[in-house]
Amino acid sequence: MNPAVAHLLPLVGIWRGEGHGEYPTITSFDYTDQWEFIDVGKPFLLFIERTWNADGAPMHTETGYLRAPSPGTVEILAAIPTGQSEMGVGTCEADAGRLKLVTDAEVLTTPTAKRVDRIVRRYEVHNEVLSYEMEMSAVGEGLTLHLTARLIKQG
Amino acid sequence: MNPAVAHLLPLVGIWRGEGHGEYPTITSFDYTDQWEFIDVGKPFLLFIERTWNADGAPMHTETGYLRAPSPGTVEILAAIPTGQSEMGVGTCEADAGRLKLVTDAEVLTTPTAKRVDRIVRRYEVHNEVLSYEMEMSAVGEGLTLHLTARLIKQG
Repeated sequence: MNPAVAHLLPLVGIWRGEGHGEYPTITSFDYTDQWEFIDVGKPFLLFIERTWNADGAPMHTETGYLRAPSPGTVEILAAIPTGQSEMGVGTCEADAGRLKLVTDAEVLTTPTAKRVDRIVRRYEVHNEVLSYEMEMSAVGEGLTLHLTARLIKQG
Repeated sequence: MNPAVAHLLPLVGIWRGEGHGEYPTITSFDYTDQWEFIDVGKPFLLFIERTWNADGAPMHTETGYLRAPSPGTVEILAAIPTGQSEMGVGTCEADAGRLKLVTDAEVLTTPTAKRVDRIVRRYEVHNEVLSYEMEMSAVGEGLTLHLTARLIKQG
């Protein structure tokens, strides 16, 4: 791995589990969640998320990169096909076998999509479990919990 | 394919060729360019670009989505691991076996990256050849040609 992202090694791989979505403007839902974090030898990780509903039909997907300008900081760039692009900065803490990343992002929305203004993501890796939370400010609502998921390292 | 993107079928596949990069603030360079446009059955195409230098070493990569809100319009969301996220809108013209897409995008840049303000992309598919041009406003320069490439459909 590139030394700039070597401390993110615990994230690298395929993670799979169950997630729950909610927001003041929608009906709550459950989903199967998969995150893949890929080391391409560069000073960033590529990620791809895919989700499925209870019938196994594909729901959401998104893709992007995690950069690590320093061991204690992270940056996220994400493309979201519902019409948003995301640029965020945050922190990375690693201690006692636990890796925590938080990103706080500005979002641009296409004119035909639901407006999203801000996305906060929290990733925590501990004992081969990835816990994920996403808060979002969208369609006029303040920053509000949208997604929680718990995923297990595969393979 | 999802009917919303069926008219983008000529783009779908792997394209490979040679590109040239230039900008007022850098030394010009040549590169091998690969674009993959993937139909995932949804109302958007996923794309992944990868480039290599003359020695075969990986250079640049980026990934994102093309949406088609109507047959005559396109939207682009892209994540760029040099520290930029892109959200753009544009037009799509298809006639006489020629497909032309132009996107004009706002860009958000992370605090540790070179600032990019605007990206204009032009894709043209004709006779299994993909011509690509990218103009960019970055690091204080106005909108200026940055990349030109000519790629052939593979397989």
